[in-house]
Amino acid sequence: MLCDTARRTIAKRVAILYGNNSDIGATERLMRFDRIWRDARLVTLASNRPGLGLIERGAIATIEGRIAFVGPEADLLANADAAETIRLDGRLVLPGLIDCHTHLVYGGSRAKEFEMRLAGASYEEIARSGGGIVSTVRATRAASEDELVASARARLDRLIAEGVTTVEIKSGYGLDAETERRMLRAARRLGREAPVRVLTTYLGAHAMPPGETDQDAYVAAVCDLVPALARDKLADAVDAFCEGIAFSPEQTGRVFAAAEAAGLPVKLHADQLSNLHGARLAASHGALSADHLEYTDEEGAAAMARAGTVAVLLPGAFYVLRETRKPPIEAFRRHGTRMALATDCNPGTSPVTSLLLIMNMGATLFRLTVDEAIAGVTREAAHALGLAAEIGTLETGKRCDLAIFDVDAPAELVYRIGFNPLFSRVYGGT
Amino acid sequence: MLCDTARRTIAKRVAILYGNNSDIGATERLMRFDRIWRDARLVTLASNRPGLGLIERGAIATIEGRIAFVGPEADLLANADAAETIRLDGRLVLPGLIDCHTHLVYGGSRAKEFEMRLAGASYEEIARSGGGIVSTVRATRAASEDELVASARARLDRLIAEGVTTVEIKSGYGLDAETERRMLRAARRLGREAPVRVLTTYLGAHAMPPGETDQDAYVAAVCDLVPALARDKLADAVDAFCEGIAFSPEQTGRVFAAAEAAGLPVKLHADQLSNLHGARLAASHGALSADHLEYTDEEGAAAMARAGTVAVLLPGAFYVLRETRKPPIEAFRRHGTRMALATDCNPGTSPVTSLLLIMNMGATLFRLTVDEAIAGVTREAAHALGLAAEIGTLETGKRCDLAIFDVDAPAELVYRIGFNPLFSRVYGGT
Ligand SMILES: [Zn+2]
Ligand SMILES: [Zn+2]
Repeated sequence: MLCDTARRTIAKRVAILYGNNSDIGATERLMRFDRIWRDARLVTLASNRPGLGLIERGAIATIEGRIAFVGPEADLLANADAAETIRLDGRLVLPGLIDCHTHLVYGGSRAKEFEMRLAGASYEEIARSGGGIVSTVRATRAASEDELVASARARLDRLIAEGVTTVEIKSGYGLDAETERRMLRAARRLGREAPVRVLTTYLGAHAMPPGETDQDAYVAAVCDLVPALARDKLADAVDAFCEGIAFSPEQTGRVFAAAEAAGLPVKLHADQLSNLHGARLAASHGALSADHLEYTDEEGAAAMARAGTVAVLLPGAFYVLRETRKPPIEAFRRHGTRMALATDCNPGTSPVTSLLLIMNMGATLFRLTVDEAIAGVTREAAHALGLAAEIGTLETGKRCDLAIFDVDAPAELVYRIGFNPLFSRVYGGT
Repeated sequence: MLCDTARRTIAKRVAILYGNNSDIGATERLMRFDRIWRDARLVTLASNRPGLGLIERGAIATIEGRIAFVGPEADLLANADAAETIRLDGRLVLPGLIDCHTHLVYGGSRAKEFEMRLAGASYEEIARSGGGIVSTVRATRAASEDELVASARARLDRLIAEGVTTVEIKSGYGLDAETERRMLRAARRLGREAPVRVLTTYLGAHAMPPGETDQDAYVAAVCDLVPALARDKLADAVDAFCEGIAFSPEQTGRVFAAAEAAGLPVKLHADQLSNLHGARLAASHGALSADHLEYTDEEGAAAMARAGTVAVLLPGAFYVLRETRKPPIEAFRRHGTRMALATDCNPGTSPVTSLLLIMNMGATLFRLTVDEAIAGVTREAAHALGLAAEIGTLETGKRCDLAIFDVDAPAELVYRIGFNPLFSRVYGGT
């Protein structure tokens, strides 16, 4: 249960303390960790355990930000010691939560448009008053990097307050090179300034820029920007919106080709409002994930499973848009397609900043089980970001990101609505 | 803009300070309040103002827990002074929020049952494993008053954290005299121990006690308890569940008659799953409110408007049960029926502890406007509790309960999902 890295680190420490004649035996006799959490109920989600991989009366120990021990407390040697030991009195410990699909960085607010729509305004009237995605593009273009960071930080802090330790953030409200870059820089800064891991995604192919009509020309411009974003390490992945109201499968394929040429993984907003076979397209490019998927068919689900493409379900948008067609959960189960859940935090169709609420919506609206909802914001979400080796489960060698909750049973996290039982959060061991 | 009570109180204070030769003129010259909040955007909901009754650059001042001044800051005399002055930098001030329908006090949890249902268990299997309302009745009967207070307090604190200052709490999980009394005592204690006003409602006619089959005998027992609860001041109102699966209109009428004889106002769980004309029945008894109302017809809506019976809408239960039939919002609007919104916080069909989320659900699922959603948790909810003279709007003479939010516009409170922008809360002036 002690990973190799931890073993080497301990050996090194022992060597410093006792000289070079120390050996691995000595490291086992002197198990000195940075921190130990004892008396925990561990939701490990380890792949070698069934269901949630629950360990009662468990312990976790960390060395240099990584999990060095995880298992029953009884398996910790009697002389295991740490600079700090925390007793959790049976509290529930999950891997730090992961929100693997957000549009957290944007300018302005769409509350006014929301209000108008409820008051009976037509889409035309809203568009005339400057509403819709165009209003977000305009406000984002007008915002400085500092302003984008500040407004996104308030939203990010809500996620962090629920135990989120990793967040994906997309661009896509600039729709010009300068603003797309500014959005991605703002996302990167959030990752440096807030205690959270941020993965950035370039979503130039989100919508047509206001006033432009030549789709192919715009797609070419989107593709042209990709190599520079890869070189400047501004984007960890490339995404597109494949839909009748957005970009065609063929155009999406061009964006994916540009990403592949630049060595960036891809993902896709697919099959949300109609079946353009986006799921199959994403799978054929080995995409990390295909997202939304309300209209995905059996064949798409099977292709995703074969390719290891994760189905990222976004019940917040489903709820806001009052959709009735659900993603094909049964097909995903049948084929073994991985399912993740995310907030889709965005100003137009999912102004949601609670991943716990999304877990409930996944269960209530899409009928995910409790285990699926919990795996969907931890292990499966890590897969959706290509980070399964680093985060998403409680296993030795992984980053020690923890979400510790004051609840009796895992099901409480999914069952309750508008409740935040977070006891404490650990990011990279501290 | 200075209410009579405040005027008298100030006059009294001036008399103490300066002797009895002081007069009202002196009180105007020396406007000394306990507290003044300045530079606020006030959502007054005052009936003499249109819509939300918004006042920009407003001020509120309080004397002995009541609003003594509310209006444009410019109308405060230059020499207005207070022991404490708080500048709000343009923040939004609402009347303290009111949750006018909850089952906050109960024993146990229904998370396990929720988990089983998602995993495909039938209602029979759940019932066999001790699930359903029976499990809550059993756990509530087994819980001490201290335990009931402690578990409810965690839920109540979530509501308070969002700016709630008044909560209604029903009994109805005891279904025997002893436990019903214990639930009501627990609710009263919450009102003494937490900084929140609690109104208690006796809901003996919630369901049949496990194992009993003679409905009329049980209804008689429910009625018998009413005078004692009134005498002991344990119940502020009496409620019943009128539905095919619960009690008939005729049985409900008997419970109402007992309440009327004891001088207690009534309210009703009505027309949630079918139209038994519960709304009309409630109106014919001058009920404070009829609640749920998914199946209420035009005639019921009209009767409620005439009787001043408030329509309490509970979108949390609608969401959890995935109902498709909505309450007749248009009919309520046409007839001028007051509409309130509440969490219905209960372990079976609405484990919701966020009134802000309920505002969003009222708008998203029932298409209430922003103004209706905000009035529904303030002014209209006060009417539903018979407390319109005391709370629910920002008007002179009312209790100074405030919910102060860090948002730019009222619509933000309804539009955002899983967000708590509360800046501070004031309960009874402090
Ligand atoms: Zn999205
Ligand atoms: Zn109820």
